[in-house]
Amino acid sequence: MDKNKILELNKKYADLNSYYGYIIQVFGFDQETIMPKKALNKSGEAFSYFMNEYFKITKSEEYINFVKEAYKHKDEFNDEYKRLFELRYRNLMRNESITPELNNKLTLATQNGFAKWLEAKGENDYSIFEDALAQMIKVGNEAIELKKKPGQTNYDVLLDEYEFGNNEKILDEFFSKLKARIVPLIKEIKNAKKKINTEWLHRPVEINIQKNLSNWLLHFNRFDLERGYIGEAEHPFTTFPSKDDTRLTTHYYLNDFSNNVYSVIHEGGHGIFGQNEPDSYYQIGLEESMSSAQHETISRFYENIIGRNKAYVSKLRDKINELTNGEFSDISLDDFYDEINYSAPTFKRTESDELTYSIHILIRYELEKALINGKITTKGLNKEWNKLYKEYLDLDVENDNQGILQDVHWAQGMFGYFPSYALGNAYGAQILNTMKKDVNIEECINNEKLEVVKDWLKEHVFKYGSMLDAKDWIVKITGEELNTDYYLDYLENKYRKIYEIEK
Amino acid sequence: MDKNKILELNKKYADLNSYYGYIIQVFGFDQETIMPKKALNKSGEAFSYFMNEYFKITKSEEYINFVKEAYKHKDEFNDEYKRLFELRYRNLMRNESITPELNNKLTLATQNGFAKWLEAKGENDYSIFEDALAQMIKVGNEAIELKKKPGQTNYDVLLDEYEFGNNEKILDEFFSKLKARIVPLIKEIKNAKKKINTEWLHRPVEINIQKNLSNWLLHFNRFDLERGYIGEAEHPFTTFPSKDDTRLTTHYYLNDFSNNVYSVIHEGGHGIFGQNEPDSYYQIGLEESMSSAQHETISRFYENIIGRNKAYVSKLRDKINELTNGEFSDISLDDFYDEINYSAPTFKRTESDELTYSIHILIRYELEKALINGKITTKGLNKEWNKLYKEYLDLDVENDNQGILQDVHWAQGMFGYFPSYALGNAYGAQILNTMKKDVNIEECINNEKLEVVKDWLKEHVFKYGSMLDAKDWIVKITGEELNTDYYLDYLENKYRKIYEIEK
Repeated sequence: MDKNKILELNKKYADLNSYYGYIIQVFGFDQETIMPKKALNKSGEAFSYFMNEYFKITKSEEYINFVKEAYKHKDEFNDEYKRLFELRYRNLMRNESITPELNNKLTLATQNGFAKWLEAKGENDYSIFEDALAQMIKVGNEAIELKKKPGQTNYDVLLDEYEFGNNEKILDEFFSKLKARIVPLIKEIKNAKKKINTEWLHRPVEINIQKNLSNWLLHFNRFDLERGYIGEAEHPFTTFPSKDDTRLTTHYYLNDFSNNVYSVIHEGGHGIFGQNEPDSYYQIGLEESMSSAQHETISRFYENIIGRNKAYVSKLRDKINELTNGEFSDISLDDFYDEINYSAPTFKRTESDELTYSIHILIRYELEKALINGKITTKGLNKEWNKLYKEYLDLDVENDNQGILQDVHWAQGMFGYFPSYALGNAYGAQILNTMKKDVNIEECINNEKLEVVKDWLKEHVFKYGSMLDAKDWIVKITGEELNTDYYLDYLENKYRKIYEIEK
Repeated sequence: MDKNKILELNKKYADLNSYYGYIIQVFGFDQETIMPKKALNKSGEAFSYFMNEYFKITKSEEYINFVKEAYKHKDEFNDEYKRLFELRYRNLMRNESITPELNNKLTLATQNGFAKWLEAKGENDYSIFEDALAQMIKVGNEAIELKKKPGQTNYDVLLDEYEFGNNEKILDEFFSKLKARIVPLIKEIKNAKKKINTEWLHRPVEINIQKNLSNWLLHFNRFDLERGYIGEAEHPFTTFPSKDDTRLTTHYYLNDFSNNVYSVIHEGGHGIFGQNEPDSYYQIGLEESMSSAQHETISRFYENIIGRNKAYVSKLRDKINELTNGEFSDISLDDFYDEINYSAPTFKRTESDELTYSIHILIRYELEKALINGKITTKGLNKEWNKLYKEYLDLDVENDNQGILQDVHWAQGMFGYFPSYALGNAYGAQILNTMKKDVNIEECINNEKLEVVKDWLKEHVFKYGSMLDAKDWIVKITGEELNTDYYLDYLENKYRKIYEIEK
């Protein structure tokens, strides 16, 4: 196949990918923000149909032949095309054995799982979701068996899909390091003399005011609202229908304004990443090729490293006082900062503090690893969940909504995604260490010049997101392989200082 | 082809129609409520792709053969299938000559037109839209030329598509009757001694309160909010992605709460029609086969005949006082009713009163008839528009947003739709006359039992919407062909009473 033919077919399939990607993203957004729950079945049917149509395209002889030829000739193209052709080929090989029938079965199982999860949440009863979850795992494992390479566990297959080159062995080691330093620190904080008042953060803030605050935060962080939208969803997420259409969601609670604040900053981080990829990636179809760990690196960088920084908290305090006519003006900046960073085990991952967060991930990691590898079943999985919350966080989960039903991931068939959050935390702290050499973050925040942070990330981080796998990306950015010490040192320093605990 | 094969293929194509219909409706809704404007081009491209894919399905040999066979055997099926097969055949014949290329050209021209219209509105400058509108008409006329039957004008082709059997001759006569009685009445009101105070309706009502009012109104009218959603859009509309997913839109103005009230009641009327079709129509693919005039009959019935009825206005007054802690309690019911029904020429169709409304339609009818028939061009069309507003309503249009850019219809390629509104008004008044024999509407409103109205409509009106063309439908409901006198009498009686003008 000659070079022009390859370029022509690449254009064709990049367009098709963007059209189907478009409806899949808009559909997904719509399902979780707007669609009446009673309509989920019908929409699921339509959704499955189009997913399957797209799947057929990627199974066509022409497409398969194009991908193989493009891969064979990849060295004749520039770096971006080369990367794109490598990714196309990797994906093709990965899904080579998946038939349209099996793919359709997967989609239907997922649609049903999502509907049952919503129903289960409505009733606060995991048992409603149990069988649908088992079915998702069963069908998922059928696909895994077809993809599995020698030496891989079933869960390894999923980990490798989210993060190329990742496996249980690497993550077991990663999580054991986190566990070894974070769990004792959580205990030290529990026993620390200093106690932080946790009441005032729950003063009511009108939803309309919170909405204004969301817009202000996104603008402050330099998310481009003219190319984006904020909706509301049970479980906040971000989606990217097209270059100029990045959609965040958040949720509003009258008595918990900071919940929205950190959802918006987190999702806004995903959005800023998406909005600042090079245009050339959109032209050839390389956009949004970054992994979930890469994406979570940025969202959690904004949420925690930027958003929970004292300079940022000071700006937030000023703004909320301005919007509420001084409702929080009796709280000193030190107290405001402490409360925002208050650390204590909680039931919900998304509401957990920066320190306990990775332990929530550890629990999910252990459960999904055992589930996918067939060591445990979905039967009574809520009890397993509750057992681990007791063991690691000393919490007694009282009901399923407080426990296993809280996250949307499994309900959407996303097994193997959770570790990305913890990896993102670690990558973020490592990137911070490098960024600090060029950028004074506190100064940027004080001067309301977050474009400096954004531009640095654009130049040193975003540009390589779609070009490199996470493990190579972090080396390119920081000159060093993943080094968990940056993250653990960052946590120790921050929390020992807040809780006045000597080392 | 045997009966089972026909049923099997009907199921296949009903499903495909519902899947594509689904994304087209959700896309359309999304474009006007959520999508950032900057993303319109990309979404338009994706939209066109799927429209074209669907078009190809309806052009496939299998589909064409199925429709012809089903039509041939239609008498072997029950009435619903028979009607469905007739409609499928009618549509097939209508679009027989349209190639996928021409269809794609139409879609692209429309997408571009819509984007340019939005831009023009942003700049308050019709000239930005002028060329795109010309292009839409040009491509539209290419399609019309292929469809035209002997004796039809170009505009007749469009009228017949919206209302089977309709043409300029019928409508010229219809509108001349309206003109003959409404225009003099408008003048009488202008010269009437009684003047209605128009100020208090513009007292500010917080948007949140208006949103609560919207929900209350829909519930009051028995729109099922568990199978529906209210969004916000520049130009309110209703869409029906699936049986349990009926979406209305409205807009909120701080100083014009009644604008939202009557948008919501109007769109809610469309929604009630959609939600109350027989289930069997959804099973075979006959749902939403009613014409636009049939739909507007119901939406305008709710908006005007129900919603502007004194009993209804009394309920509205109570509710708005309850929600605003008595902001309107100094206005007597008589004054409230008069103001809600205040009649005077205005620039905007959607904000016009029940009496002047059809004159707005008359103006659009005359312009689009001349445009499509090539008697005038889009060049300087805003001036033509303004001339007619001066002539019929004695108004001096000051700018394009106040004038020609106000409606979304032409921007979406909907030429020939406007007369449906006026026909709907006339049908509605004729239906009222019949309904009154069974139902005491005022009593239903006073007792907050609007399900009685809904159920009567379901049994006598909605059930036949997809089964009969409008001209036969009105006979089935009222025992009489369209008789414009009911409407004109209704208007005369109502407005002579309000303005205390003797006959």
